[in-house]
Order: sequence, then C-alpha cells, then structure tokens
Amino acid sequence: MSIFSRPTAVNLSDAAIKLKEIISKAASTVTVPESVFQAYIEAAEIMLDDDVATNKAIGSHGANFLQHQQNNSKRLSVLTHCNTGSLATAGYGTALGVIRALHAQGVMERAYCTETRPFNQGSRLTAFELVHEKIPATLIADSAAAALMKEGRVDAVIVGADRVTANGDTANKIGTYSLALCAMHHHIPFYVAAPLTSIDLSLSSGQEIVIEERSAKELLHTRGGLGEQVAASGISVWNPAFDVTPANLIAGIITEKGVITKNDMKDDAFDIKDFIEKATGKSTV
Amino acid sequence: MSIFSRPTAVNLSDAAIKLKEIISKAASTVTVPESVFQAYIEAAEIMLDDDVATNKAIGSHGANFLQHQQNNSKRLSVLTHCNTGSLATAGYGTALGVIRALHAQGVMERAYCTETRPFNQGSRLTAFELVHEKIPATLIADSAAAALMKEGRVDAVIVGADRVTANGDTANKIGTYSLALCAMHHHIPFYVAAPLTSIDLSLSSGQEIVIEERSAKELLHTRGGLGEQVAASGISVWNPAFDVTPANLIAGIITEKGVITKNDMKDDAFDIKDFIEKATGKSTV
Repeated sequence: MSIFSRPTAVNLSDAAIKLKEIISKAASTVTVPESVFQAYIEAAEIMLDDDVATNKAIGSHGANFLQHQQNNSKRLSVLTHCNTGSLATAGYGTALGVIRALHAQGVMERAYCTETRPFNQGSRLTAFELVHEKIPATLIADSAAAALMKEGRVDAVIVGADRVTANGDTANKIGTYSLALCAMHHHIPFYVAAPLTSIDLSLSSGQEIVIEERSAKELLHTRGGLGEQVAASGISVWNPAFDVTPANLIAGIITEKGVITKNDMKDDAFDIKDFIEKATGKSTV
Repeated sequence: MSIFSRPTAVNLSDAAIKLKEIISKAASTVTVPESVFQAYIEAAEIMLDDDVATNKAIGSHGANFLQHQQNNSKRLSVLTHCNTGSLATAGYGTALGVIRALHAQGVMERAYCTETRPFNQGSRLTAFELVHEKIPATLIADSAAAALMKEGRVDAVIVGADRVTANGDTANKIGTYSLALCAMHHHIPFYVAAPLTSIDLSLSSGQEIVIEERSAKELLHTRGGLGEQVAASGISVWNPAFDVTPANLIAGIITEKGVITKNDMKDDAFDIKDFIEKATGKSTV
C-alpha cells in the first residue's frame, strides 16, 4: 500500500498515512525491533475489522434506505459498476455491500454488473462475487446500460467512489458519469456508497480532482494489456481511469453513518460537512 | 448474404431480395445457365457501384452540412461508434464516409472511435480504417464517451444505422442510445448517416423493431467469443446487438439525397416520407 497510491483514492492514502504514523511512534518508543512489527500488525488488524464494520453499516443503511424509497413494495433490481466488493474492500464491500444486504433481506430481484472496460473489474471480480454469493446476477456491456434502463429493468444504480468532494461530486471508475446521465434521463435514482474516509472536505468540488490516465495497452490488448493485441496498430488511445459525476446527478451518498441526501433531488450540492459534524459530533474544521 | 440476415439490417435483406429477383427473371428468360450467373454478377457490380456513389453522396452532404452548422469557423472533432466504413459498407462508408469527407476537405480535427464492445468493431475495424486513411484518430472505451464530451472535445456524434423507422427512430449497434443521451446532455448534435435503403417506412416507430440478442460468449470470452475466457464462470449475460435511439435525440439523418432535419431540434419525429417524396419525386405509398 503506497501513500502515493492513485490520487483519487483518498481512503487508501489515508490508511497508509495512519499506519506510517503508528510505525514511526512505535519505532521511537519500543526497545525491540520486533515490537514495531507487532504494533503494525495489531493496528492493521484493527483497521481491517473497522473496515468490515464500516462496510456492513454502509450495506445496512443503503438497503434500508432503498427499501424505504421504494415503499417496501417490491423486490429491487440494482445496476452497479466496477468492483466494490470483498475483492476491492476489506471484506463486505460498499456498493456491493448494499447489494449483499438487500439480498440478505430477501428483496434483491437481480443485480446487473457492467463489464467495466477496459480492465474488466465487473466481468472478472464483481461477477465472480455475485455468482459466489448466489445473488441473481446478469453481466452487461457498459454500453448496454442505457438500453437496460429503458426497458425498465433497473430500480437503482449504486456505485462506489474513489473520492467524494465537499459538495458531493464523485470521482469513480470511468463510465460512472455516463451511467449517472442515463439514470437521470430514465428517472432512476443514482447512489454513491462510500465510507466517510473517501470524502475529502479539502476539495470543494470535482473540478479540483486530477484524473489519472492509464496505459493505452489496456484498450489495445486483452487481459488489461497483458494479453494478445485486439485493436488496430497505430491508433492513439485516451484511457482515463476515472471520471467525475457531479452531485446534481446523485440522489444520495450512502455512508456508515447513514445516507446523505439533498433537500431537493436536483440540488447542485450536498452539505456533507454538516452531515459529518452531526453524525460524528465533531467539528470538521 | 442471406435474405434472413439480421432483422434490423433492412438494406441487406433489400439487396438480397433484389438479386434474387434478378436471378429468378434471368433463369426464366435466358437459354444458357451461364447467363444466369452473368446476370447476377452484372447486377451485383451495378449495386456495388451504386452503393459507393451513395456513400460518397452521404459523406459529401454530411460534411457540408456539419461545416455549415459550425459556421465554417473551425476544424471539427467527431465521435463515431461501431464500424460504418469500407469494411462494413461498399467502400466509402456512411458515418465514416462523412468523416472521410471532412478530412478530405481539410476540416477534420480528430475522429474519436469507441471500442464498441462486445465485438470490438471500433477498435478493430474503424481504428484500422482511420489509421490507414491517416485521419487523426483516438480510440476510447465506450464508457469514456461522456467524459470526453464533458471535456468539450466532441463537436458532433455521427453513427450509422441498421434500420430507421418512418419517424426517425434508429436501431443501431448497442451503445448508440447511450451516446445519444450523453450528447444531448452536453448539447452536442447527434447525427445518423444512412442510405435511404436503411429507412423502413413500413415501421412507424422504433417500438416495432425487434432487437436481436447475441451469444453470451461475446462478453465472457475475448475475440468476440472465440478467445480465452475473461469473465467469471456462471454469470448470466444480457447481450443485445442493438438498441433504439429515439428521433427526439437525433439532430439529423444524413442520406445520399441530403440531410433530413426537424423543424425544431427537439421535435419527437422526422417527416421522412415527405423528404423522400420530395427528394426522389416519387410517392412512397
């Protein structure tokens, strides 16, 4: 885990910084080198337990909120993007945690997962987890999401987040923004599920987020760039890892402390600072 | 070429039916069997020449129209989807014909082509043609189109059509509808380029179009289903070959007889019947 992990994934660098501080403190206070290692392991295990508890709380808040929104009237079909499950998080998942909780409560009709080009996190990881958990699930091409929505087969879209800014603008895997636009057009609520550690109040809006661009090979070759060449030789590639979904397209941000909503669905911004202060009883300044 | 070629591709079955009639007529009028074959070849060659002329007219009308729309003020960047070039049509292309014509006129800034999952017609065929023609071109994941538009890098979207109904609703490669929604949100004009033979006046709207569903293997394996498995085993797949873009999202339909437009950009329908009757001087009834 690197402090210099991807610029959008604030919670990763957050965890790395915490662990660094713990090692630094241990190194200056203990007498045996092994104790430094021991302190590191203990801290990491606590963080892991905390992460699982956080994800389970996200799942529970999200599932309850969605059922309430739907007036508990029917089973839900949910579309998700990329992987936010136990293969990407500590063990339960964020967006996938909500799907797991809906399934556990017996109200999951079907989960749809996008392929998530170019790295296929959806078809490789999310599909694997959904099959493993025996959740009724269907894989679609990223480009088929709008047609699926038009057919009335999606009740909600739930995605994870790499970074959420103070107003609720959300950086997440490329394609998230497109799904949010299509969801809005079809009047389907679009939710972001993320721990509070993914929220970066130091950024006022998504315009301040720098988007990482990744290797052209991910699009030119199979297996995320490691396999055989598929695309025509000589073509240029634009391969942004993320895009930013503006807060006005987001119906709610599902956190371990509850769901952050706006007064009006179409408001341009969430008041996340206020939510965190009320939820944690601490000032964020 | 089969008369029973895909249900959406009306121009293919149209051509097959014409050739069948020519063979049938020849078989009943000539005395030597070779003459039937000769009649078939001659008819096919004429159809090919006609097709190239049609495509070149589409390219020319489209390029002129787009320049006029942009007040001839700058070079244009165009996004296209799937393959509509010489590898899919008779030799010049429909949407790609417009791109070729813009390039020939020296006003093409950059062509963006989508990968076009799951069969990769964009990364394999369109990218190949763009590189071959030395047109400045960039490949993107289907899911990156909205982010590209948001960055202001797309002046127009131009796609082909498998079938256009009487009101202008257009069946085309899966993902077309999503691009049209994203284009509308970003106030980017969205055009369909298609020969009049792709227009099926017997269908009043897109609701009458039956969408072909294709093999799950296209999403589960590389190389359009022939290569190694990528996706998790056991996952269900929804793989529609096409989607329908409603006429209200389409700014114009570029044909070999000119560009069909609506009185008001946001009108729900084109009057294609009227256009064809005026353009050809023939009644369509």
